[in-house]
Amino acid sequence: MNVQTTFEASVPQRLVRVREAMGKEGVDALLVPSADPHLSEYLPGHWQGRQWLSGFEGSVGTLVVTADFAGLWADSRYWEQAEKELEGSGIQLMKLLPGQPGALEWLGDNAKQEGVVAVDGAVMALTSARQLGERLKTRKAQLRTDLDLLGAVWEARPSLPNNPVYQHLAPHATVSRAEKLSQLRQTLNDKGVDWHFIATLDDIAWLFNLRGSDVSYNPVFVSFALISQQAATLFVSGDKVDEHLRQVLAVDGIEVHDYALVGKALASITPGTRLLIDPARVTCGLLDNLDKQVQLVEGINPTTLSKSRKSGEELKHIRRVMEQDGAALCEFFAWFEAQQGKEVITELTIDEQLSAARARRPDFVSLSFSTIAAFNGNGAMPHYRATELSHAVIEGDGLLLIDSGGQYLGGTTDITRMVPIGSPTLEQRQDCTRVLKGMIALSRATFPRGILSPLLDAIARAPIWAEQVDYGHGTGHGVGYFMNVHEGPQVIAFQAATTPQTAMQAGMISSIEPGTYRPGQWGVRIENLVINREVGKSAFGDFLNFETLTLCPIDTRCLLPEQLTKEERDWLNSYHATVRERVSPLLKDDALDWLQVRTAPI
Amino acid sequence: MNVQTTFEASVPQRLVRVREAMGKEGVDALLVPSADPHLSEYLPGHWQGRQWLSGFEGSVGTLVVTADFAGLWADSRYWEQAEKELEGSGIQLMKLLPGQPGALEWLGDNAKQEGVVAVDGAVMALTSARQLGERLKTRKAQLRTDLDLLGAVWEARPSLPNNPVYQHLAPHATVSRAEKLSQLRQTLNDKGVDWHFIATLDDIAWLFNLRGSDVSYNPVFVSFALISQQAATLFVSGDKVDEHLRQVLAVDGIEVHDYALVGKALASITPGTRLLIDPARVTCGLLDNLDKQVQLVEGINPTTLSKSRKSGEELKHIRRVMEQDGAALCEFFAWFEAQQGKEVITELTIDEQLSAARARRPDFVSLSFSTIAAFNGNGAMPHYRATELSHAVIEGDGLLLIDSGGQYLGGTTDITRMVPIGSPTLEQRQDCTRVLKGMIALSRATFPRGILSPLLDAIARAPIWAEQVDYGHGTGHGVGYFMNVHEGPQVIAFQAATTPQTAMQAGMISSIEPGTYRPGQWGVRIENLVINREVGKSAFGDFLNFETLTLCPIDTRCLLPEQLTKEERDWLNSYHATVRERVSPLLKDDALDWLQVRTAPI
Repeated sequence: MNVQTTFEASVPQRLVRVREAMGKEGVDALLVPSADPHLSEYLPGHWQGRQWLSGFEGSVGTLVVTADFAGLWADSRYWEQAEKELEGSGIQLMKLLPGQPGALEWLGDNAKQEGVVAVDGAVMALTSARQLGERLKTRKAQLRTDLDLLGAVWEARPSLPNNPVYQHLAPHATVSRAEKLSQLRQTLNDKGVDWHFIATLDDIAWLFNLRGSDVSYNPVFVSFALISQQAATLFVSGDKVDEHLRQVLAVDGIEVHDYALVGKALASITPGTRLLIDPARVTCGLLDNLDKQVQLVEGINPTTLSKSRKSGEELKHIRRVMEQDGAALCEFFAWFEAQQGKEVITELTIDEQLSAARARRPDFVSLSFSTIAAFNGNGAMPHYRATELSHAVIEGDGLLLIDSGGQYLGGTTDITRMVPIGSPTLEQRQDCTRVLKGMIALSRATFPRGILSPLLDAIARAPIWAEQVDYGHGTGHGVGYFMNVHEGPQVIAFQAATTPQTAMQAGMISSIEPGTYRPGQWGVRIENLVINREVGKSAFGDFLNFETLTLCPIDTRCLLPEQLTKEERDWLNSYHATVRERVSPLLKDDALDWLQVRTAPI
Repeated sequence: MNVQTTFEASVPQRLVRVREAMGKEGVDALLVPSADPHLSEYLPGHWQGRQWLSGFEGSVGTLVVTADFAGLWADSRYWEQAEKELEGSGIQLMKLLPGQPGALEWLGDNAKQEGVVAVDGAVMALTSARQLGERLKTRKAQLRTDLDLLGAVWEARPSLPNNPVYQHLAPHATVSRAEKLSQLRQTLNDKGVDWHFIATLDDIAWLFNLRGSDVSYNPVFVSFALISQQAATLFVSGDKVDEHLRQVLAVDGIEVHDYALVGKALASITPGTRLLIDPARVTCGLLDNLDKQVQLVEGINPTTLSKSRKSGEELKHIRRVMEQDGAALCEFFAWFEAQQGKEVITELTIDEQLSAARARRPDFVSLSFSTIAAFNGNGAMPHYRATELSHAVIEGDGLLLIDSGGQYLGGTTDITRMVPIGSPTLEQRQDCTRVLKGMIALSRATFPRGILSPLLDAIARAPIWAEQVDYGHGTGHGVGYFMNVHEGPQVIAFQAATTPQTAMQAGMISSIEPGTYRPGQWGVRIENLVINREVGKSAFGDFLNFETLTLCPIDTRCLLPEQLTKEERDWLNSYHATVRERVSPLLKDDALDWLQVRTAPI
């Protein structure tokens, strides 16, 4: 009996136990989101309840369990993976499509009349709880958020992470925490609020110039923060913050309290005062601690907007990091091409070699996400991850997709490149060419400052749609500065809500990563990071365009150059000239030769 | 003393009288929207209260009057016009920008604490009344919708229009009213509703295959409709429907009641039954008639979705209408070019000659909107209209913008073309070229069926944004079938809300009309109508593209052909070949010669 079999067998058993717990509490339906008390994208094991209960290991998905139904909602990125992982579990894959009903809507339509729906309030955003409560009204069903049904039956639940917190120091930290606190307090003052509570880990790490390693790939630490004009309290458990750091923080007026005391602190907020929270980024369970007379002021966390706009000083560090990251990639690719056919190279070897190349670069801290090295059919799963049990050997013909990134003290990288293996087919090269056209179209775009980012997506997709091709994921996400590789508020995805917060502003870093996925055959994605920069003010307003940050050749052997327009060829040649100029000084020998060859004009 | 002076002088007097009436009722702020009980775009004189009180003649604007403030909110299309018309009125122009606060938000911020805000409920959509009521909460102000303060002081208020209603007959009406009613009832049944109330005139005209002439340019008639599975009642005043038509309608089970009885009919809806209404398209004043126990089901009028998707039979008529409309335009342009320099031609002459050319075409009914013939600086006002008192003579050098359209029994047209006068400057031709690039980019686009129309706008704007140029209006609006020239639900405008109703579906007709406006100098707009058509189903879903419907040359003398890409030149040459092929058979002599010359390939 191998590990996989044990795992698959256990999911139905877990469901049985959860259903027993539901029965005892009179709960008719249990909702298990992919979420934690900080509403993070990547969850520490302690809050991987949805994964534990369903066996689906994708990072985003929502599980609903009733007495006679269990369904997991996942978007198109995860369908292939979910179908494999849910097989035999008794859990149905509910394919989530843009604009189509999801788990909350399903509960609104299918919850038992006058029944009870439960979700752990500790991991449910206030907005989501409100939406669900609203939907359940038509079924006259009740929403309970005070039960942790999973906790009751989850025996080997991992404990909370307890890694040390450390400072993000100058020169890489370009604004002091005192200055950031002062700016935040000015904003709070302008909004006429007395308190601001932050539950999102990247906002807290950014505000205090602190970093940690509690969450894989994201240099953050499990914590909450409560800010007023007079006080700033960081809630963090045990000995994560050492005595020296406590003293450093005290100098800036920051007190460190135990993580478990956050509920009590919220409960002690003076009735009648005004508290700013982001209802999408704070759980309803935490807010239940508040006195009913505390006046909630709802809005995006001011830190989310501030940290999205990278300063000129940060940009200088980022440009240097991009050169180093590009150099690491060149070293890897030079090795890969030299060794192809000489040794067995698998998707796992690629991860090892590429990670090692990055680790040799100065100021490297960690990967920024789990490397995706996906050959042919595996590339059709946008969030594929090779494992010891299941991975491909790179041989024969086809396309290898490598999506990877690093955390450096001076920035965060995220890049996807396509690598030709043997002789890619005409159709494969057509797919790569079309995807590149989309990436170039958006990379070259100019647009009004403040335009809502989802509205730009069509520019990248137009050349892809032209051939009746599309992809299920967004074209771009925000990227942090030595911080989460996915951050808001902007998102270049036509499926996303066009909220005012998604307005494009100078200094925001985004990915541009169109793709094409042919299930079972191959996948294509090409990704650069870009930063919004001002191009000037005309009679028609202020305009932004993009500076491409990522510096690594785009393999022209995957392309059909004759299908590129003159403007597209010019863009590609100019990009390659820049890559060569800026990355060459960091390379020598084989890697330098490789760079020269792969940046030759077409 | 001329007419204009009288008019300008009277606005302050009217404001005095309205403020007196406000004082008597204890009203602190009065909101006067551009609206009528049918929430139409074009208002009969009886409901032109905002225009009467403010003196601003633009079709869209919102007036707020308090004791010491009067402000008119208008979007950028109207700024130039409003500044002229509001001069000396004591009314401030409040420039409405996308994403910026409008009149409702202003009231939310500035209404008197615990004061009273009034708006005539007879002309206020339910959604707008709700939004305003919600905003006023923070000021603890009260919203009154039961006062018609304007009516009290408006002495020479025009009476309601009373033009006859007539049938839209086969072959131009391609689906019988019985069939349309049956489809609507099926939809009501699917939604589990008992009643459906319609206040929008184009929905009513479409549903019953009736037309009228109560509203300038829109072939509709003032009415309401109440539909159930058993009954269909049309509320229309006096003798607008003659005895014969009453009998025809009775055959299809449609009763005609007096317009004034609609409130009573709503009041008599059985408590506990379910009534479907579109809260954005019915006034709160009318709904106040309902018993509190009637259950409102809110959603878009099903007829709005149905009529937006033109059938294959309708498309055949539309194609013929476009040929005839194109022929009328060719005759006009041939006359215009021949007479230039021989007689004095003004913007008004253009309107006369072009309207006459359309009127000579078969099945012509009326213009579809007031012709915009705007020379040089006048063209910078997107909704400019020449008057006897103020209009330009076409002479010297520059650009003439002509935006015009017709109502025909088999379709509605709307087209904008640029005409070179003398020698347009390089900058003028650059503007025309860039605008054409935008129009071509969207005209050539393919996109997924169901994509929300505002998300497509960036495709048209990208080539224009590239030069840091933009325009304040939407790129495209829906167009009816012998019906309103502006209709929903789709709207190709990044400023518009991305509601699910804006999903692109096969058969929808839209305009594509990017522009560039240089205040005091010139304006450029190029507009075609296009229809969504299926291009097929791929592995990635269903895709649509556009068939261009409008058939009239785009004057290449306004362009810089060398700035067009090969693809753009190919599109233009192919378009001109189609225009020549389809319109030539309807022309002879000078007009035919003109068409041949103006469709020559570049």
